Amino acid sequence: MTPIHCVNEFIAAIEQRDVDHAISFLHDEISYENMPMSPIVGRQAVADVLNGFLAPAREVQWVVSRQWAVDDVVINERLDRFKLGSGWLELPVAGFFHVVDDRITVWRDYFDLSSYMNQFNALTND
Amino acid sequence: MTPIHCVNEFIAAIEQRDVDHAISFLHDEISYENMPMSPIVGRQAVADVLNGFLAPAREVQWVVSRQWAVDDVVINERLDRFKLGSGWLELPVAGFFHVVDDRITVWRDYFDLSSYMNQFNALTND
Repeated sequence: MTPIHCVNEFIAAIEQRDVDHAISFLHDEISYENMPMSPIVGRQAVADVLNGFLAPAREVQWVVSRQWAVDDVVINERLDRFKLGSGWLELPVAGFFHVVDDRITVWRDYFDLSSYMNQFNALTND
Repeated sequence: MTPIHCVNEFIAAIEQRDVDHAISFLHDEISYENMPMSPIVGRQAVADVLNGFLAPAREVQWVVSRQWAVDDVVINERLDRFKLGSGWLELPVAGFFHVVDDRITVWRDYFDLSSYMNQFNALTND
């Protein structure tokens, strides 16, 4: 499995909201770094976070507009979409994935937290 | 000049707060896309924005922690630092630069706008 294949399979599992399958692509000691927030370390802690934001969504699409692989790093620009309440929440994200031995060891996402929160509140308060 | 050299020179000019020199590395029709906000199109419009956030800073450092170049695209992870009021504002940013004929044609930055605003207000309201 190449690093880009690993990341693609991980994202496919996210879109299926299959957290158990998604975390099979993560290293035990993964560091998941949402840049506005503190890092989340360890596969089970990441599973808890993924469950938290996938559970309310009736459908999930992570649309990758551009993706690069350089050595063991995969970089993508995405529009993460979550079907919630009355519509779709859409969040532009830049993702950086370090892949070692077919497992993601570091995952850093850059995005605007208020864009997420404002849409979440608007869609779920209708 | 390689794409990565172009981006490095651009960032060096930003750190010197030399907007006239910085925009010499931008295409006339550049699209500058701060992902939480609308695109800013055209070299002069970008100059106005750069002046707006460089002018209040007594010192500027854009610390590039990782940088990749793939064909005509340069990607970096940065900590953009601005010395303001009583201290330093520090903003994690993911940047994507498309470089054609020694000029940046598209520049997309992903970051958390509240992280910027909250620090700006705290540092300048002391």
